[in-house]
Amino acid sequence: MGIRHIALFRWNEGVTPEQVEHVEELLGKLPGAIPELKSYSFGADLGLGAGNHDFAVVADVEGESGFLAYQNHPDHQAALAVIKPMLADRAAVQFTV
Amino acid sequence: MGIRHIALFRWNEGVTPEQVEHVEELLGKLPGAIPELKSYSFGADLGLGAGNHDFAVVADVEGESGFLAYQNHPDHQAALAVIKPMLADRAAVQFTV
Repeated sequence: MGIRHIALFRWNEGVTPEQVEHVEELLGKLPGAIPELKSYSFGADLGLGAGNHDFAVVADVEGESGFLAYQNHPDHQAALAVIKPMLADRAAVQFTV
Repeated sequence: MGIRHIALFRWNEGVTPEQVEHVEELLGKLPGAIPELKSYSFGADLGLGAGNHDFAVVADVEGESGFLAYQNHPDHQAALAVIKPMLADRAAVQFTV
């Protein structure tokens, strides 16, 4: 069973483009470090919709074990440690694909 | 430029499984009706994460024109008319893939 994990972030006031670039650098290394990631995409909102969140991450994994391996991977945890203080809001869903 | 559109929904209290099934039926018809949809996935949250939203839609389109064609398509508008009264919250992002 394929699982698609989605997380949408709204940044705090004052988060800088450099901080977002650093997040992108950290996330960009995850596919190479986490074999359970079947596909991985992320990026900043394009400003096409009013009231949108600021950033999205989409991770496709195989089964709950793949999802847990991604979640608990030290490189993912390190990225979360950078992201969490930047967050005003986070919305997430995992569903089958 | 590929665009990935994501919308996460939190349903109102009292939304029934039958209502969610009806949403899935309506969304399931969109790829056949909207040629601009390069890929389309949706589904209910699996309950793997505390505080998650309830449902996700992921639409891949080509460029802003593809996104607008999807947004404004009558079948998509008809699905939104069913979805909107069910919503307690909606989070969305469009980003390049």
